[in-house]
Amino acid sequence: MRLKALLPDLCLLLLAFLPSSHALADEGMWTYDNFPAATVKQKLGVDITPAWLERVRLASIRLSNCTASFVSPEGLILTNHHCSVACLAQLSSSGNDYLKEGFVSTSRDGEKRCPTQYADVLMKMEDITAKVVAATRGQADKEANEARKKTLTLLEQDCEKAAGTRDPRRCESVRLYEGGQYFLYQYKRYTDVRLVFAPETAIASFGGDPDNFQFPRWNLDMSVLRAYENGKPAATPNHLRINWNGPAAGEAVFVSGHPGSTDRQLTVAQLETLRSSLPFWLLRSAELRGRYIQFAKTGAENARIVGDPLFSLENNIKVRRKQLDALLDPALMAQKAEAEKSLRAQAGSGPAADAWKDIERAARRELELSVPYTLLESAAGFNSAYFRYARTLVRAAEERSKPSEQRLREYAGPALPLLQQQLVAAVPVYPQREILTLSFGLERMREFLGPDHPVVKALLAEFSPDELATALVQGTKLGDPALRKQLWDGGQASSDASVDPMIRIAKLVDPPSRAVRQQYEDEVEAVTDTASEKIAAVRFKALGTSVYPDATFTLRLNFGTVQGWNEAGTAVEPFTRLERAFERATGSDPFRLPDSWTSRRAELDGSTPFNLSTNNDIIGGNSGSPLINAKGEVVGLVFDGNIHSISGSYWFDTEKNRTVAVHPAIIRLALTKVYGTAALAKELGL
Amino acid sequence: MRLKALLPDLCLLLLAFLPSSHALADEGMWTYDNFPAATVKQKLGVDITPAWLERVRLASIRLSNCTASFVSPEGLILTNHHCSVACLAQLSSSGNDYLKEGFVSTSRDGEKRCPTQYADVLMKMEDITAKVVAATRGQADKEANEARKKTLTLLEQDCEKAAGTRDPRRCESVRLYEGGQYFLYQYKRYTDVRLVFAPETAIASFGGDPDNFQFPRWNLDMSVLRAYENGKPAATPNHLRINWNGPAAGEAVFVSGHPGSTDRQLTVAQLETLRSSLPFWLLRSAELRGRYIQFAKTGAENARIVGDPLFSLENNIKVRRKQLDALLDPALMAQKAEAEKSLRAQAGSGPAADAWKDIERAARRELELSVPYTLLESAAGFNSAYFRYARTLVRAAEERSKPSEQRLREYAGPALPLLQQQLVAAVPVYPQREILTLSFGLERMREFLGPDHPVVKALLAEFSPDELATALVQGTKLGDPALRKQLWDGGQASSDASVDPMIRIAKLVDPPSRAVRQQYEDEVEAVTDTASEKIAAVRFKALGTSVYPDATFTLRLNFGTVQGWNEAGTAVEPFTRLERAFERATGSDPFRLPDSWTSRRAELDGSTPFNLSTNNDIIGGNSGSPLINAKGEVVGLVFDGNIHSISGSYWFDTEKNRTVAVHPAIIRLALTKVYGTAALAKELGL
Repeated sequence: MRLKALLPDLCLLLLAFLPSSHALADEGMWTYDNFPAATVKQKLGVDITPAWLERVRLASIRLSNCTASFVSPEGLILTNHHCSVACLAQLSSSGNDYLKEGFVSTSRDGEKRCPTQYADVLMKMEDITAKVVAATRGQADKEANEARKKTLTLLEQDCEKAAGTRDPRRCESVRLYEGGQYFLYQYKRYTDVRLVFAPETAIASFGGDPDNFQFPRWNLDMSVLRAYENGKPAATPNHLRINWNGPAAGEAVFVSGHPGSTDRQLTVAQLETLRSSLPFWLLRSAELRGRYIQFAKTGAENARIVGDPLFSLENNIKVRRKQLDALLDPALMAQKAEAEKSLRAQAGSGPAADAWKDIERAARRELELSVPYTLLESAAGFNSAYFRYARTLVRAAEERSKPSEQRLREYAGPALPLLQQQLVAAVPVYPQREILTLSFGLERMREFLGPDHPVVKALLAEFSPDELATALVQGTKLGDPALRKQLWDGGQASSDASVDPMIRIAKLVDPPSRAVRQQYEDEVEAVTDTASEKIAAVRFKALGTSVYPDATFTLRLNFGTVQGWNEAGTAVEPFTRLERAFERATGSDPFRLPDSWTSRRAELDGSTPFNLSTNNDIIGGNSGSPLINAKGEVVGLVFDGNIHSISGSYWFDTEKNRTVAVHPAIIRLALTKVYGTAALAKELGL
Repeated sequence: MRLKALLPDLCLLLLAFLPSSHALADEGMWTYDNFPAATVKQKLGVDITPAWLERVRLASIRLSNCTASFVSPEGLILTNHHCSVACLAQLSSSGNDYLKEGFVSTSRDGEKRCPTQYADVLMKMEDITAKVVAATRGQADKEANEARKKTLTLLEQDCEKAAGTRDPRRCESVRLYEGGQYFLYQYKRYTDVRLVFAPETAIASFGGDPDNFQFPRWNLDMSVLRAYENGKPAATPNHLRINWNGPAAGEAVFVSGHPGSTDRQLTVAQLETLRSSLPFWLLRSAELRGRYIQFAKTGAENARIVGDPLFSLENNIKVRRKQLDALLDPALMAQKAEAEKSLRAQAGSGPAADAWKDIERAARRELELSVPYTLLESAAGFNSAYFRYARTLVRAAEERSKPSEQRLREYAGPALPLLQQQLVAAVPVYPQREILTLSFGLERMREFLGPDHPVVKALLAEFSPDELATALVQGTKLGDPALRKQLWDGGQASSDASVDPMIRIAKLVDPPSRAVRQQYEDEVEAVTDTASEKIAAVRFKALGTSVYPDATFTLRLNFGTVQGWNEAGTAVEPFTRLERAFERATGSDPFRLPDSWTSRRAELDGSTPFNLSTNNDIIGGNSGSPLINAKGEVVGLVFDGNIHSISGSYWFDTEKNRTVAVHPAIIRLALTKVYGTAALAKELGL
């Protein structure tokens, strides 16, 4: 309804996505430069001032795949347990399983650095649309695509250079509104991030995969990190206070975070291609899940080393499975077709007249290329950490010999520091797991490319996938960080001279991988980007920025209220309480509560709120986001959506899409009554 | 075009399915009572006489999941290797692996009985449509459905009774044209079927799963069985002679066999429901594949015991994956929608006016029920041989206490002898494999029904899926055929008294399983069957039986010619030759040729034809079908289709859908030069 008031000419199009009974959808993943404060004032009676926005923005953190927030002046970071799973796994060993046992640092000295974690804070946003448009104007699709990338790299480099080295900035371009806008985002990056506290996985993910994306829930899905600068806790005056009482039902709440990706503005042809591509991913992932699970049954240590990737795989399977369900719903596609029809009518015979057809052609080509692209360029056929190291080393050596703006974008100057940090980080690589995933990748590559594909023939002329995987994993020395550093530093000469078998394989498959990437960029990306910009212009003409762009793992803010929903006639309450978790526990994972909780059951107040639900509009990437009240206090820690939130990739279901968060009261209980975290509790004001 | 000449009023509808350049599609799975001999005469210049039809019909055999044919007067049966895989696995043990080593019986005494195989020959067909229609006329959907089943059971019983016991008949009703016709088929059943010859899997399935549904191919996918009666080789005067030279390119060829199932006449709503259901099956199957593969890596014996189910699972995954691809093709769905629109126009405001809407409602309900139906009633949640035994025993005990026509159809009188034979057959059951599949089933049941479903709660309140599966498999005694016999004979009292844990579980889940089946039958099947009969009437009014019914695993005959096709601009030749197999072999399965061939390479004529392709219209179930020339000689052994044949579930792609067969010349070479099969060769006239 707010859109209708602003834009009478397109209201029919937009209303097609809104159930008629809920015209006041709390939908939208708003950029900070375009937050609809007036609407919020009108709907929720809350004043969101520029100062509020700045303070919350500067306290919001982007992690590798998650969100987090500063919650103390000395760099304390609150995020989810599942956002620290990689760090916990990297720091664990067979005798020291932090995922199973949890991690408590009782002093600053005990805080352990996460080998590959970083923390970004968004300092500044600059609109560069005009510069990008100027650089591509009048060019054919392929040339425009190349010019666009080159321009973005140069703008990023100039930005970082201008920021200087005393208080350096990481500058990243962002494509918004499917190319309707380009921005340059400046981040302050912390690369020394240390682990302070994590509970046991058994309570962090109580209910495990069966309960994932379900509500009611009882998950203490939290961890605490700390940002360091120059070896000392970072000064973070811009942080959020935690309100330990949490919010009331119906209270206005805001989520500041980094939704990863949505596809709400794709064309029908693009959605159909996505629908046709998802089974390819799902089938392989389900098989890998089966391989991990069976491998885990062969011993406790084997179970431990696949625990982390299995956890993440199962989460992704559930997401993509429900995404496919959404795309297979004829009603959703009919709505999308109807909306597209209206937009095409708006486009008339203008510059965008052929844009949808162009995209349809590109989408068909994308489907053809998706199998070789996934297996070769995305390296799913070589599924292993060793190969990823080898690919990075081989490509970085070649790319770094070119001028920055002529490189593949992920090897351009501004991207290199993080790339190098992650490459040389000392993290465990498990040969048995490597053999498992690599053998699997090779076997499926043979299945999907076929035994007669040149790459398959070259690799498997004499060996079975198992034999080749075993030989490569046993032969490579890339598990040694010092060797990786040496190869990185040695550049092209070292890469060429290396006799490491994984480096040789990476070199062998590089030309065909680059070839399919080039096809994709020229025949899919270039065509789609140009056509999308035309469609975006039609949409902007009608709507301006009164709508929000699709998610791009950049900072967004949205508003909503604490509320449950109605599930098939039954009301779901927005709060859960501790006592139900004890009642629900069985003796077996993932429904086993850890001893730290069961042994203290008598001392713990069973009525303590545990998790809560709200109607904010979130998606994967928002994990770890602070749930914030009108005063700017943290009143929850977002860790999930309900099952209906997954279709949020394509549309926002006002009736049922819900955000799920950890309640502050259970965090307080955990820190003060369950774990030996006195210093941490004190720092958090408890 | 043949359809157009006959039926001008519907030609547009039908042409929608025919690429315009190929109006003479060799499409159709014709029942023997309605074979279009005139069309064949006109198109191919071949006379198919009633005598030809009778002779071929009486030489055609239905096996459990396959087709076969008599090829000698003393009961010799020619079928595929993959149709005898279950028998080979059942007869194998850890020291005696017939799948790996092959099986050669040099004398009749050495022929080994396949524990669960049978062979049916279609003796007579009777149209019972009028009786079924009369029994259901004027009744509401649910009542009509019950009356229909009851009537079919009674007709089957009367038929078997009338046939008497001296030369007994197995009478089965068949629903054709989605309920437009009902027939009673009378079979002569051989229950003593013995293994005579099988080559090694390495040559039978050379190329394995990677090459499955591919062509060119080099598979000796053959096995020889023999039907016995009263302990002696059956007299089979109606058999087919093998023409060892095979057919010429372009020659007219016929396939007599039992295509299992096609969905070419489903409504769009039904196809959409199928499209939405397939991922659920595929995801679980892919995971199980992964579990089997990883389990197989833990030892040679473990690899052996999962070899047979993995082989069959991978085949099914490929089929359903390509079916899903077909259903995800917007062009296919658009064609189906167009055709449906025309048919609905024909229906006008007549009795079928609401039939499509009724089916759409039922299809939506089917989708809702598919998860609990699959997990409980189809017992995917209890995936194990022990549970299947227990389910059969528990249900048979209960059902046999009712009058035959009031039972669940699979327990009606005529179905019992085979059911009992298969239940008490002495076949190996491997506890480790049972634990694997049962644990997997329970885990996915918990995922998809949710931890709070009553059945899941009852079973997994204290145990993990692994713990419960292990306890059940270790506790049950159902691996003992004598105990199964005793429980079967003991009926309800024995079932009630049994303390076997698997019997107890089967009893526990029977009420909820029956409940979801009842919902399905009343709300899906009943509605769909009534509505489908109405649509069938519209179709019959327009087309009569000038079209063929969807496949139902009953005997069909079709015609075509030996030909390749054009694959993305490249002509695929219809014949392959032995020499290429040797060239293509690597040292690793599934591209390793067995020693029996490699050691004799010098003596074998490399130009011997190996496999061939034709444009006959087949589908799963046709495996083992004789490919027959105009004279009624066997000129090939159908074992596969090409990759484009899988979409044959929904339409026949004239351009690309091809049948793949073993050439008689390679069979001759195998029997005379490679294996010690002199007696067999002699019996086959070599």
